Amino acid sequence: MGKGRFEAFSDGVLAIIITIMVLELKVPHGAELAVLKPLVPVFLSYVLSFIYVGIYWNNHHHMLHAVTSVTGPILWANLHLLFWLSLVPFVTAWMGENHFASIPVALYGGVMLMCALAFMLLARLLTRHEGAESKLALAFGKDYKSKLSLALYVAGIGLAFVNSWVAVGCYVAVAVIWFVPDRRIERVLKAD
Amino acid sequence: MGKGRFEAFSDGVLAIIITIMVLELKVPHGAELAVLKPLVPVFLSYVLSFIYVGIYWNNHHHMLHAVTSVTGPILWANLHLLFWLSLVPFVTAWMGENHFASIPVALYGGVMLMCALAFMLLARLLTRHEGAESKLALAFGKDYKSKLSLALYVAGIGLAFVNSWVAVGCYVAVAVIWFVPDRRIERVLKAD
Amino acid sequence: MGKGRFEAFSDGVLAIIITIMVLELKVPHGAELAVLKPLVPVFLSYVLSFIYVGIYWNNHHHMLHAVTSVTGPILWANLHLLFWLSLVPFVTAWMGENHFASIPVALYGGVMLMCALAFMLLARLLTRHEGAESKLALAFGKDYKSKLSLALYVAGIGLAFVNSWVAVGCYVAVAVIWFVPDRRIERVLKAD
Amino acid sequence: MGKGRFEAFSDGVLAIIITIMVLELKVPHGAELAVLKPLVPVFLSYVLSFIYVGIYWNNHHHMLHAVTSVTGPILWANLHLLFWLSLVPFVTAWMGENHFASIPVALYGGVMLMCALAFMLLARLLTRHEGAESKLALAFGKDYKSKLSLALYVAGIGLAFVNSWVAVGCYVAVAVIWFVPDRRIERVLKAD
Repeated sequence: MGKGRFEAFSDGVLAIIITIMVLELKVPHGAELAVLKPLVPVFLSYVLSFIYVGIYWNNHHHMLHAVTSVTGPILWANLHLLFWLSLVPFVTAWMGENHFASIPVALYGGVMLMCALAFMLLARLLTRHEGAESKLALAFGKDYKSKLSLALYVAGIGLAFVNSWVAVGCYVAVAVIWFVPDRRIERVLKAD
Repeated sequence: MGKGRFEAFSDGVLAIIITIMVLELKVPHGAELAVLKPLVPVFLSYVLSFIYVGIYWNNHHHMLHAVTSVTGPILWANLHLLFWLSLVPFVTAWMGENHFASIPVALYGGVMLMCALAFMLLARLLTRHEGAESKLALAFGKDYKSKLSLALYVAGIGLAFVNSWVAVGCYVAVAVIWFVPDRRIERVLKAD
Repeated sequence: MGKGRFEAFSDGVLAIIITIMVLELKVPHGAELAVLKPLVPVFLSYVLSFIYVGIYWNNHHHMLHAVTSVTGPILWANLHLLFWLSLVPFVTAWMGENHFASIPVALYGGVMLMCALAFMLLARLLTRHEGAESKLALAFGKDYKSKLSLALYVAGIGLAFVNSWVAVGCYVAVAVIWFVPDRRIERVLKAD
Repeated sequence: MGKGRFEAFSDGVLAIIITIMVLELKVPHGAELAVLKPLVPVFLSYVLSFIYVGIYWNNHHHMLHAVTSVTGPILWANLHLLFWLSLVPFVTAWMGENHFASIPVALYGGVMLMCALAFMLLARLLTRHEGAESKLALAFGKDYKSKLSLALYVAGIGLAFVNSWVAVGCYVAVAVIWFVPDRRIERVLKAD
């Protein structure tokens, strides 16, 4: 099966997720600067999630680029990833509106952890489908970056109950790690 | 007429339907775990509908894959399917917010029944357009799966007034039946 | 300039318009059938607008199919059409929530009239761009259907202040006229 | 890397931004003309932003048309532009609901200024990637239009505290300057 509609549907869902998040920035009553103040944590939360969804789109884009066809299980692994990503607007808003309180910060990390696991599962199915000698399999290699991300999410979820800003620091660290699009795939593709 | 924009428009609508459903998960006031509790049935309802819309996207994708061109009536049969699917966010939220009460569960089944009938109508128009000897016609064959689904929906709608969890069980059974993408089509295409 | 992104953007906006309209079907409190009753006019209003947007998508699809390239003014004429269509969810909800009262019904007709004029302007720019001898120009011919639609909209707007159901009847008549995709274009294309 | 998904994702986000803005036109209670009156500034604000987003889509379309491939930094510069554009519905609604009061008008200009800077950054990365002798680099030339736009935004932000209608006049002037799609690019492409 071709990957055209697969990519188009994923792009559609990701574009909607990234855009409806901004709807949680509720327009305040009053025209003074002061009314914007309660929105600052919601805005910061939005910025972090925007970058996360951007990273997922970027990496999804890169990964699929190296793929030639998809199967039924791959379609479902992708929907599974989109499911967890669809919860990002909810946890983003809950975290922002509660000024980065412990439980919302931990839940944010939990959803991000599930997104990461779902992405790894999708990557595994794709590499298996493409074959162990495929470019994609070579590109992923030992996948230290994903493992480090998982560790940072788990640390963040635990640390949220100690100091939620340290937890947010862990999540920001994950974003920084992934900010650059997946050079591994680019490198292998170029080596071609 | 080509099928490019037909698929793109369907993908767009399905992507939006699957994503706006999550907007019914209203961000609660308060940062305790307890405030999430009333959201649990809304969340479960969301999960079920996410899987349903995923199945429809998957089967739509498979079915159109085997098709070469579309006609005016097919465009309208597709819009008819999208119309019923567009009501899914509404019945999903109503069912979830009322903790799976009888009438919302029955209405959910009713909308799902209409979606299934609309999909069968679209499939029939497509197979007629492609011809009785086409791959698509062979793939659908006697279509036991669709008929069983209809029976389960009707049973669920009736049973909702006896015990709404049994009704939900019927709907879950339909989702399980269809969870695997339409192997019939895949098989015939591969036999090629 | 190619027409790929032009079509994709139009499809995206139309898919979102047709889907966000359903958000006005606000999930009611309570699980009895009675709570759905106030939603009936909102639902009927939604059905009418869904069919209208479906017709616009269909005719847009047909018209662009016969076109080979687009220019700057055509891009803006298309955005102008999308602007008026973007107001459809608003007037649909206002008409439905006020049980088809005179002024909302007249405003609905007014927005529909602007959509029709915007579509005719786009069609004119496209036929001029393609040339008087083009398939598109032949297909449009004297365009009785558009002129009749305009007359029905104007009649509906006026009649809304006498009896709003007669006005709605005029709008339904327009939908019936256009329900079939533009056979004129199909016919000319086939004659090829 | 190809530009197909890059364009598709951008189109998706822009289509959603332009369409969700209309959701701020909240359906009023009551069926009299008088209830629409408070919506007039919200509507005017919507019209201005619709034209702005239309201009961005148009210029994005033109700019990408002249581009053959994209890199990681370009993907991120594009997401950066989409981020600022995603804030347009928020500032549009805040400005409209407060009847063009000083601070909301200044913030509107601030977000528009950031969008313009983000677009210039994207344009610079693209021209560098394509090469100084590329069509795109020739098309942009000295880029007087962008510089004038920046000056008008800065002026508008300052003037908002003197008279907010003068500020809005500055923003309208920018829209007029850019209303025509980027002729520079069209000219160079045609000279080919």
